[in-house]
Amino acid sequence: MLSEKNKSQWLQLKKYSEEEQTMSNNNPLLEAFKQAAYPVIGHGPRNLQVLQEAIGNMNGQQESDIYGTGKIIEEFQAKMANFLGKEAAVFFPSGTMAQQIALRIWSDEKGIKKVAYHPLSHLEIHEEDGLKELHHIETVLLAEKSRVIELSDVQSMDEEVACLLLELPQREIGGQLPSFETLVEISNYCREKGIKLHLDGARLYEVLPYYQKTAAEISQLFDSVYISFYKGIGGIAGAILAGDEAFIKKSKVWKRRYGGDLISLYPYIVSADYYFDQRVNKMGTYYDGAKELAQLYNELPDVSTRPMEPVSNMFHVHFRRSKEEIESILVEVYNKTGIGLTNHLREIGDEECYCEVSLGDRYVDVPKHLLEKAFQLINEMLKAKK
Amino acid sequence: MLSEKNKSQWLQLKKYSEEEQTMSNNNPLLEAFKQAAYPVIGHGPRNLQVLQEAIGNMNGQQESDIYGTGKIIEEFQAKMANFLGKEAAVFFPSGTMAQQIALRIWSDEKGIKKVAYHPLSHLEIHEEDGLKELHHIETVLLAEKSRVIELSDVQSMDEEVACLLLELPQREIGGQLPSFETLVEISNYCREKGIKLHLDGARLYEVLPYYQKTAAEISQLFDSVYISFYKGIGGIAGAILAGDEAFIKKSKVWKRRYGGDLISLYPYIVSADYYFDQRVNKMGTYYDGAKELAQLYNELPDVSTRPMEPVSNMFHVHFRRSKEEIESILVEVYNKTGIGLTNHLREIGDEECYCEVSLGDRYVDVPKHLLEKAFQLINEMLKAKK
Repeated sequence: MLSEKNKSQWLQLKKYSEEEQTMSNNNPLLEAFKQAAYPVIGHGPRNLQVLQEAIGNMNGQQESDIYGTGKIIEEFQAKMANFLGKEAAVFFPSGTMAQQIALRIWSDEKGIKKVAYHPLSHLEIHEEDGLKELHHIETVLLAEKSRVIELSDVQSMDEEVACLLLELPQREIGGQLPSFETLVEISNYCREKGIKLHLDGARLYEVLPYYQKTAAEISQLFDSVYISFYKGIGGIAGAILAGDEAFIKKSKVWKRRYGGDLISLYPYIVSADYYFDQRVNKMGTYYDGAKELAQLYNELPDVSTRPMEPVSNMFHVHFRRSKEEIESILVEVYNKTGIGLTNHLREIGDEECYCEVSLGDRYVDVPKHLLEKAFQLINEMLKAKK
Repeated sequence: MLSEKNKSQWLQLKKYSEEEQTMSNNNPLLEAFKQAAYPVIGHGPRNLQVLQEAIGNMNGQQESDIYGTGKIIEEFQAKMANFLGKEAAVFFPSGTMAQQIALRIWSDEKGIKKVAYHPLSHLEIHEEDGLKELHHIETVLLAEKSRVIELSDVQSMDEEVACLLLELPQREIGGQLPSFETLVEISNYCREKGIKLHLDGARLYEVLPYYQKTAAEISQLFDSVYISFYKGIGGIAGAILAGDEAFIKKSKVWKRRYGGDLISLYPYIVSADYYFDQRVNKMGTYYDGAKELAQLYNELPDVSTRPMEPVSNMFHVHFRRSKEEIESILVEVYNKTGIGLTNHLREIGDEECYCEVSLGDRYVDVPKHLLEKAFQLINEMLKAKK
């Protein structure tokens, strides 16, 4: 169970949770990162160019989707249903909306207004309690917040729930993962017990290289699946919810109730499709980069990554030094080497801070000798200040 | 009170409620309309060109909004708050979301889970009962569905409500309007009785020429105001909700709960802003066109517009003939003259049908002699078949 203090601490992070935190003023780390010739994380800046590139070469005469109908939305939904090995899929403006709706449908179907998920689930810490405020669905928080949900957590649950939500990877703890065998066991257990299993797959593509499975092989363990298009894929916004026909039909009614059935969702669909095609097969490259970079971090004194060896393109870096100290070191290193490692550090008390690292297209373009030089400098400065 | 039968009839219309109904297959009227050289209604087709035009000339380096923050969203919100004469404004992906949230905030504030609106309000017939399903807010339906809400309807309400919603113009009955004096009286009455007044101003710009008032002059009668960007303005999607600072602060929390606080809303904001600037001052021209065109319709036998003289750029045309008959006449007229009057007819029983007419940029480019010829032909065919 997450304490109120911890929860409020995590809630504070929500505004800083994206790769490019472009809004903060008077933020020397962010400024230095923006000036860096070789930013290491992400695909590129979140600017209008992202949409211009995706929409620029499309046929302007192609018709808009209209309230969930039309070629442009129906074809993409079919493509994603196929990718996930599910009967049907529906495009949503956001994962927040898609996941609340999935949990509501399963709660209604089971007649149980209770679901289970990890204490650091997006629903618990980033959605202003939408699930509770809009649906009056109670939540059971499984596992300690520092680790992923294991089979034993599910087995020892003493409350009856309609649905269990698993997030793969568990983003707020550096993208940790259970083993594939554990997933299979949890899935079997839930089917046996009549518990619906929902996948928060915001970053599902990113874990396929680690699992060495297809998206469909993972998805088949789940009754419903959500995936996102602005994380690993680097689109603008938008989500897909997939499941069987009956589930998807119900989700479309809820999508309208939420005001998510926009007359036109194509700006998000076109960009999701464009960047999906470009990047879905690069996840292995991003993953390899993450392992390489994590090793560089782990060689530094008072620094360790979580997990020690990444299982996706993302991980967290914990510095057992104050945020101020690390910030000043990083700014100097960015200025001297042109390498930009992160744009944001988060405090954990006075003597520790951390950052999230998520690799994309940029990493392969970073000159290795400059990267090594940057880490060498950090190493020296950490030792000097010890 | 709307009967279940009427309600289901109106619900059926929801998929056909937009100007360009591009999805229907085997629809001869729609096909003939698409082939017509001179479509009379709307601004243009809803296609990708709409976004390409709006985004194409923007500076690609301009940063995205991030979760409701950043220059691109904050500046547009400030511009709209100013336009509406309100303290603050927030951009929403949809009016459905914005309005449910407004009614929820007022319900919470008054501690009364009941609101009043017209029986053909968008909330009642187009949102799959989102207000009731998500908020358990009861509704009081005021006035018969064929006319707008008058002061006496509000005065004679015997139930206590938190909020009254007025839609200006009342879209589903041809865009009818109460007089400005009535608005002032209703506003005064509500303030006296402590009833919050919310404006469904999806088509607010469109009625300013009739009222001869500014948007701020209308808005000041209301506690909260919603406006849309894909109707008269011709943007892609999106809405603004405006009110005082405290109200807007609460609405942002609900926006996150709904999953409407997208990481990037800029595709809608950029296009809303672009087409707002282009069209907000053309509403008088559209209104004049509507009056002229309605007169042409009213000169036809068995045809009348609702209202007889439009009070905005929109009106409905009722044909006291079967849908099949009118459809075949229109298809022939489109083919012979190149004039495209409407792309969709809605049945009212066997012997009546109607269409919605909403004028935009296209009307001024329609050659008057061809338009007159088209109406002359319809006149002859209606008389011949009498």
